[in-house]
Amino acid sequence: MTPQRASVDPEARRPASLPMQGRRIRVFDTTLRDGAQSEGISFSVADKIRIARRLDEFGVDYIEGGWPGSNAKDVELFEAMRRIPLRHAALTAFGSTRRAHVRSEDDAVLLDLVRSGARVIAIFGKTWDFHVTHALKVSLAENLAMIADSVAFLKQHVEEVIFDAEHFFDGYRANPDYALRCLRAAQDGGASVVVLCDTNGGTLPNDIAAGVRAARETVSVSIGIHAHDDSGCGVANSIVAVEAGADHVQGTINGYGERCGNANLCAVIPGLALKLGCDVLHDGALAHLTTLSQFVDEVANVPHNARQAYVGRSAFAHKAGMHVDAVTKHRSTYEHVDPESVGNSRRLLVSELSGGATVASKAALRAMHLDKRSAEARHLLKRVAELEREGYAFEGAEASFELLMLDANGELRYPFEVLGFRVIVEKRGSDAPTTEATVKLRVHGVERLTVAEGDGPVHALDQALRKALNRFYPDLAGIRLTDFKVRVVNVREGTAARVRTIIDSRTEDRSWSTVGVSTNMIEASWHALVDGVIYGLLCARDAGAAPEQTQVPDGG
Amino acid sequence: MTPQRASVDPEARRPASLPMQGRRIRVFDTTLRDGAQSEGISFSVADKIRIARRLDEFGVDYIEGGWPGSNAKDVELFEAMRRIPLRHAALTAFGSTRRAHVRSEDDAVLLDLVRSGARVIAIFGKTWDFHVTHALKVSLAENLAMIADSVAFLKQHVEEVIFDAEHFFDGYRANPDYALRCLRAAQDGGASVVVLCDTNGGTLPNDIAAGVRAARETVSVSIGIHAHDDSGCGVANSIVAVEAGADHVQGTINGYGERCGNANLCAVIPGLALKLGCDVLHDGALAHLTTLSQFVDEVANVPHNARQAYVGRSAFAHKAGMHVDAVTKHRSTYEHVDPESVGNSRRLLVSELSGGATVASKAALRAMHLDKRSAEARHLLKRVAELEREGYAFEGAEASFELLMLDANGELRYPFEVLGFRVIVEKRGSDAPTTEATVKLRVHGVERLTVAEGDGPVHALDQALRKALNRFYPDLAGIRLTDFKVRVVNVREGTAARVRTIIDSRTEDRSWSTVGVSTNMIEASWHALVDGVIYGLLCARDAGAAPEQTQVPDGG
Repeated sequence: MTPQRASVDPEARRPASLPMQGRRIRVFDTTLRDGAQSEGISFSVADKIRIARRLDEFGVDYIEGGWPGSNAKDVELFEAMRRIPLRHAALTAFGSTRRAHVRSEDDAVLLDLVRSGARVIAIFGKTWDFHVTHALKVSLAENLAMIADSVAFLKQHVEEVIFDAEHFFDGYRANPDYALRCLRAAQDGGASVVVLCDTNGGTLPNDIAAGVRAARETVSVSIGIHAHDDSGCGVANSIVAVEAGADHVQGTINGYGERCGNANLCAVIPGLALKLGCDVLHDGALAHLTTLSQFVDEVANVPHNARQAYVGRSAFAHKAGMHVDAVTKHRSTYEHVDPESVGNSRRLLVSELSGGATVASKAALRAMHLDKRSAEARHLLKRVAELEREGYAFEGAEASFELLMLDANGELRYPFEVLGFRVIVEKRGSDAPTTEATVKLRVHGVERLTVAEGDGPVHALDQALRKALNRFYPDLAGIRLTDFKVRVVNVREGTAARVRTIIDSRTEDRSWSTVGVSTNMIEASWHALVDGVIYGLLCARDAGAAPEQTQVPDGG
Repeated sequence: MTPQRASVDPEARRPASLPMQGRRIRVFDTTLRDGAQSEGISFSVADKIRIARRLDEFGVDYIEGGWPGSNAKDVELFEAMRRIPLRHAALTAFGSTRRAHVRSEDDAVLLDLVRSGARVIAIFGKTWDFHVTHALKVSLAENLAMIADSVAFLKQHVEEVIFDAEHFFDGYRANPDYALRCLRAAQDGGASVVVLCDTNGGTLPNDIAAGVRAARETVSVSIGIHAHDDSGCGVANSIVAVEAGADHVQGTINGYGERCGNANLCAVIPGLALKLGCDVLHDGALAHLTTLSQFVDEVANVPHNARQAYVGRSAFAHKAGMHVDAVTKHRSTYEHVDPESVGNSRRLLVSELSGGATVASKAALRAMHLDKRSAEARHLLKRVAELEREGYAFEGAEASFELLMLDANGELRYPFEVLGFRVIVEKRGSDAPTTEATVKLRVHGVERLTVAEGDGPVHALDQALRKALNRFYPDLAGIRLTDFKVRVVNVREGTAARVRTIIDSRTEDRSWSTVGVSTNMIEASWHALVDGVIYGLLCARDAGAAPEQTQVPDGG
């Protein structure tokens, strides 16, 4: 055999068909339920609503909101979501099968689920025999009845009931017959999907595939996979499950979840779509994956994992000189997919080049009349790159980015000029501390020096700012500061740590977020606060022509 | 078929034989070479030596140190390592095949490799036909000669030559015959291992397995796997490769590496050992895996990934009340392996989702003599509940929780008393703001009033606190503040928002986190800061008897 001719340029080659071309896979997001079990994550109801709306826009099929009845926050969420229509996703309530030896119609958990008003209900039940008899302490037969009865009862009240087979893979290993009987009980009760849960996250890919194949041979309803990352195989397990016959995939954005987290949808979705050719989400959704990942991290106030597959800041960053050289000539040398396909971009670390494409596509998204080749656009690109090096991140703070764009385009009229500020916080003994803020501004040519007290520095600065501005801008009365978050953004040696503050503001019918960065958290907060007020005043002035923002109706 | 009897307690059951029981797998660590390509990581020669010694102690089979000849640092490393005997591991030098149409004995890269003095040499060569003809621009036949010649030449000088088949899986997909011929060329040259590299990290597990099987049928030498995590499947790909016939695994500690990183050995090794029963490393090595992971993060100066499989701080952390209750009764309910087997430990998070059981078992874990029915215990539970209502969360701030427990038990001697503080932040025009903090303390009966400047309020308060305390507590010099985070914890209408600050502190060998809550972010930070200093001083005093915390031994 002599060496043959080389195959054609892989960049030019479009595979005629991928292994699972066109197979429809449903995406079930549980960021708000299982993801909320992450250490260090605690979503407010408002956080959950923002994320739910964003997930719906992104196009997931199901959004698991929480367990109504288990805590007051989740009850409030389902209540609030009744007034927020979702375009695509089905809001799903999570719970368990009925208690043993109780009629479903008398079971408090099941009744709470029905009361939640969710269109879809997912309940988990046990499938590992040992846990049935020793943790739950019921007979194997009663457990089967609990599964079938609970599903059947719920099915009378909602469109769809999903059965989560807890510990399925461990159960299948211990007693395959019984684990599979549990799936059949759920199917008999009327479940539309039986979800095979690797609850402990300990199963390896080949065992996942074997379990899915066994389930496939046992039930005719849809098979789902719910993987965890305890063995570092959460993503792979989800993908091999689909190859083995599952068509419903559960996971979380950024892999949030208890212990090591759930299967990371930010890697599972592009794997299924780009590598296997599955039909996942709607056309064009994938291009928003990276911003979705960043948005959810910002709302959760957790640091972004730069090495995250597909969506990480480093995912397409090339450092080795050899790689940089090669990748600029032939993308396929060191990139497994086109970064733009998931809304990410290539970064060449040697030249510290970044952001250009992102900025251009963002400006386009906002339908701003920014000519990409104009001096204004070049100035904006340069400014964004500078700010990003300083620690700014505009994901989760799009109002600040819009102000930058307006400024670059010469369209921003500042409603006031900042001349300075001072904050004094003082505490004596066990009394509450006093906080006093002074601000000095120039408004319409007039210098204003005002002072105010507050609960804390941000509140006091906000109060002083209002004192200085309210006679000029009565609209300010309708603008409220609703939330803020502060985080150290670089902990690299040698430099003072920088602090990034994100501030959320709102009026009756609009909410927006702004960002400030400084080595000083008060100054970072001040920058974010000033941006928030300017943006609010501009919107009030241009009501109607204002840039699009997330609408968060008042829940009260 | 009627439901059978339940299987036996999984905790009591020792599987007679795991799928690959006793199969010897060699571990090839490339943290110092491929891992050093990570964005944000830059090892000094001293760093590399510390890590190499630690890896050798841990028991890996190969340590790839770098590419001698490619840069001065790596030349220096190999020079230095000649004087540092390794007990177990073979120091390996990395490089490439010879240039085209050059004799091996005249090739600078190969000569540098020989000169490095390394016992083992790993060289990469191309196996993807398109890249041979279009990136390398040589004939397919010359590339085969380059592989065979280079290996044969090096084999005359060193014990072992390993061939890294770059882009093997992409090459195998494009032109399987040619990719396999490259492996045969390496075998013919005398390579002891042909390593199948998923260079772009884009291959999914089933394709990895197919590629390994094809290689297995083509060559008789050992097959290695070198996976990257660009698809989120780096760990799974390494494991399925072993199941398909590989017996040499390459990866990095904590998954460092260019873009999304390499296969994470901290998950691959326990997966192979605990799940498949492979013979990996020496007996007892696995119990040092968690400290190894922490040590390497510390040397690299990168934040620890809490959700990392097996070794992450959260890997065995339980938050949901239901999980906490179950896992304390039957480990297998929510733990896939015994945390101690990898040197990690179970953590029961005190959170809004947890109850009294968590608090009681946490106290027990810390070997504190807290009788669950005592007045002290009831007082502690009440205090925790009160603090949680105020917005405290102890799950990421266990040092604060331990201080509370010590206090409830009457065992906490405060090293100083806080009388007050004041912070002034002032900004004029475009200058950087100035920050000044004053603190007033009573230490050993003496009042101390000190003032300091800082980059921001937390820094300034920390500086002033140190000025007040350092003459009394010289240990303070060893305590550093490493990170802090602030967020609003309740955004309920009507009440002033509360702010929660988490501060991370550390000494050479220990790290801890503390929490503070207030309506004022400066006061919240102050509380967390003071807790952090008190905890650090107590640990320094009680070294040995101190509450259990992560140990990061110095490897040097």
